[in-house]
Amino acid sequence: MIRFAPLPAGLPATVPFIGPETLERRRGAPFAARLGANESAFGPSPLAARAMREAVGQVWKYGDAPSHDLTQALAAHHRIAPANLMIGEGIDGLLGNLVRLMVAPGDAVVTSDGAYPTFNYHVAGFGGVLHKVPYRDDAEDPQALLDRAHQVGARLVYLANPDNPMGSWHEGGVITDMLDRLPDDCLLVLDEAYAEFAPADAVPRIAADDPRVIRMRTFSKAYGLAGARIGYAIGAPELIAGFDRIRNHFGVNRIAQAGALAALADQGWLAHVVAEVAAARDRISHIGALNGLTALPSATNFVALNTHRDGKYARALIGALEAEGVFARMPGVAPLDRCIRISCGPVTELDVLEDALPRALDRLSPA
Amino acid sequence: MIRFAPLPAGLPATVPFIGPETLERRRGAPFAARLGANESAFGPSPLAARAMREAVGQVWKYGDAPSHDLTQALAAHHRIAPANLMIGEGIDGLLGNLVRLMVAPGDAVVTSDGAYPTFNYHVAGFGGVLHKVPYRDDAEDPQALLDRAHQVGARLVYLANPDNPMGSWHEGGVITDMLDRLPDDCLLVLDEAYAEFAPADAVPRIAADDPRVIRMRTFSKAYGLAGARIGYAIGAPELIAGFDRIRNHFGVNRIAQAGALAALADQGWLAHVVAEVAAARDRISHIGALNGLTALPSATNFVALNTHRDGKYARALIGALEAEGVFARMPGVAPLDRCIRISCGPVTELDVLEDALPRALDRLSPA
Repeated sequence: MIRFAPLPAGLPATVPFIGPETLERRRGAPFAARLGANESAFGPSPLAARAMREAVGQVWKYGDAPSHDLTQALAAHHRIAPANLMIGEGIDGLLGNLVRLMVAPGDAVVTSDGAYPTFNYHVAGFGGVLHKVPYRDDAEDPQALLDRAHQVGARLVYLANPDNPMGSWHEGGVITDMLDRLPDDCLLVLDEAYAEFAPADAVPRIAADDPRVIRMRTFSKAYGLAGARIGYAIGAPELIAGFDRIRNHFGVNRIAQAGALAALADQGWLAHVVAEVAAARDRISHIGALNGLTALPSATNFVALNTHRDGKYARALIGALEAEGVFARMPGVAPLDRCIRISCGPVTELDVLEDALPRALDRLSPA
Repeated sequence: MIRFAPLPAGLPATVPFIGPETLERRRGAPFAARLGANESAFGPSPLAARAMREAVGQVWKYGDAPSHDLTQALAAHHRIAPANLMIGEGIDGLLGNLVRLMVAPGDAVVTSDGAYPTFNYHVAGFGGVLHKVPYRDDAEDPQALLDRAHQVGARLVYLANPDNPMGSWHEGGVITDMLDRLPDDCLLVLDEAYAEFAPADAVPRIAADDPRVIRMRTFSKAYGLAGARIGYAIGAPELIAGFDRIRNHFGVNRIAQAGALAALADQGWLAHVVAEVAAARDRISHIGALNGLTALPSATNFVALNTHRDGKYARALIGALEAEGVFARMPGVAPLDRCIRISCGPVTELDVLEDALPRALDRLSPA
């Protein structure tokens, strides 16, 4: 018998997500369209790909622990100081370290019911007590989040803007207004994984030194480097420096560092991807409409399609799509779970979707 | 003012290691010989390098969360079950998760004074209380570790075999004997990062299901993939399954997964590296002897050279080597710190060392 420490002993062995490879092994065949994880099948910048292939020759070396060159480049890109930046193993890794830094067992944390499960996983993993407020009109509800944060004395409030899984967004002014009304001693965790796809006015203007917020960005989405595991946090220097107390200092992959640096430098490719994603959103909306599903507005690289039915139906539709070779996902809770979520992908993958969706729907309503 | 949770609020902001790139930025010039981090400048298998370059084309996809293919291959390689294996972001990442799983604040942990600092960093990071016993004859001392573990009721005992930073090792029977004398409820953390370089009889025969021990292996050393951040733990299924409660499920880089799989399959390259390392150890010993420094026996990819002086002298020698363009490191505590530690490298790098060492020594003893 293994005796774990009390905190992990009380944790379930669940996993936040089942990955597409696991599903492919279960079904015994690869997916024809991989549209479930909000990855970017448009790929990274060719310059980033080249930089990564070249970095393979140096992979016998540990990565640079402070990710110096990338930090400098990001500081210049965002016009902030290097001390405002912490590079980490994707937003997932950064969120884990942030929760560890801020949340003691029993501390209250507030999020939206149906928002990013991996954040919840980390909060539970460090013994935090999660309080969830409902979405409002398919968007995270700043007022409800604030009210609950005051009520429970939250240490952290999580808000993704734009939101995953619904694709909705708030204007920047809504976010800065939240900051002014946060409880004392409460930090806003602003997950901006999808910021590059959003309208400019959805990205709030916040001083990088503002101690009330930490912003999370990633190279996994618009930059097309999900498998590289690299992202960054922007925050007050004192908060950022805290990560050095606990992080795995040599944890960032060297090839990822080289790829992210080159990807950041190729803003032309980023613009190309953002345009492709916008076109793909339109196409997904169109495919949905052809099949009686209504697209929600999206500022991300995915589209939530309203089935106009319930979660049970939507879940069956995800299964039917899987049987038709399409990997998609869906929100986890009602009423969001009346939707399925389709990631943007290249034309060939959307052709597969267009072909598969009516057949999947037919599976649910046999003639 | 940021208010961290009480545990991290009490942690220092120190880092376990200063990396060579940081030193290069400080000195304003690259090193001519990078012999300080026990990396493998012999590089990974060319087949692994090719697999990684090819995997760049898939880097827009998240890695496979269970690292299924690599787990299967490692299970076949070690003739154990997949349930005995957990892939992680190098041994550093796995050690962090292990400590988090096993050690509650205030719990006792035992290690050797001068052994791997990153393990100590994780223990402090989760509030464990570290108890250190001295090395004995430049080797970790199993009897002293056991005695202290019983005395303090340790949850974990850390032993690296072969040892870093001295390069010494114990025969496998010593390790299995330790297991039989461990306190109840105490896990042996057997760090085998250097196992591939060691004599066969230094690798103990332990059933993979044995709940008294967890073994840590890495692709960072003999396999030449330090920058990829990938390693694995071998342990009882119940212990291994515990990692799924807390780990960053999508944290392993996709390119690293592909590289490790190909590296494992090329055991011929591994044998080549092990032979090159053995030759380099001899050469480093010879270079040391030419300069009045005595090599300690090593079962690793580095050699500790005894300066026959004290830690102050050795530390000055490391600085002088740095000034001569050679990156090396040294043990952190007396009496180990009478030595400097030189990693094995290709002939060209050892030529640099041979050239630089007498000049570095001259810097310490001006004529």
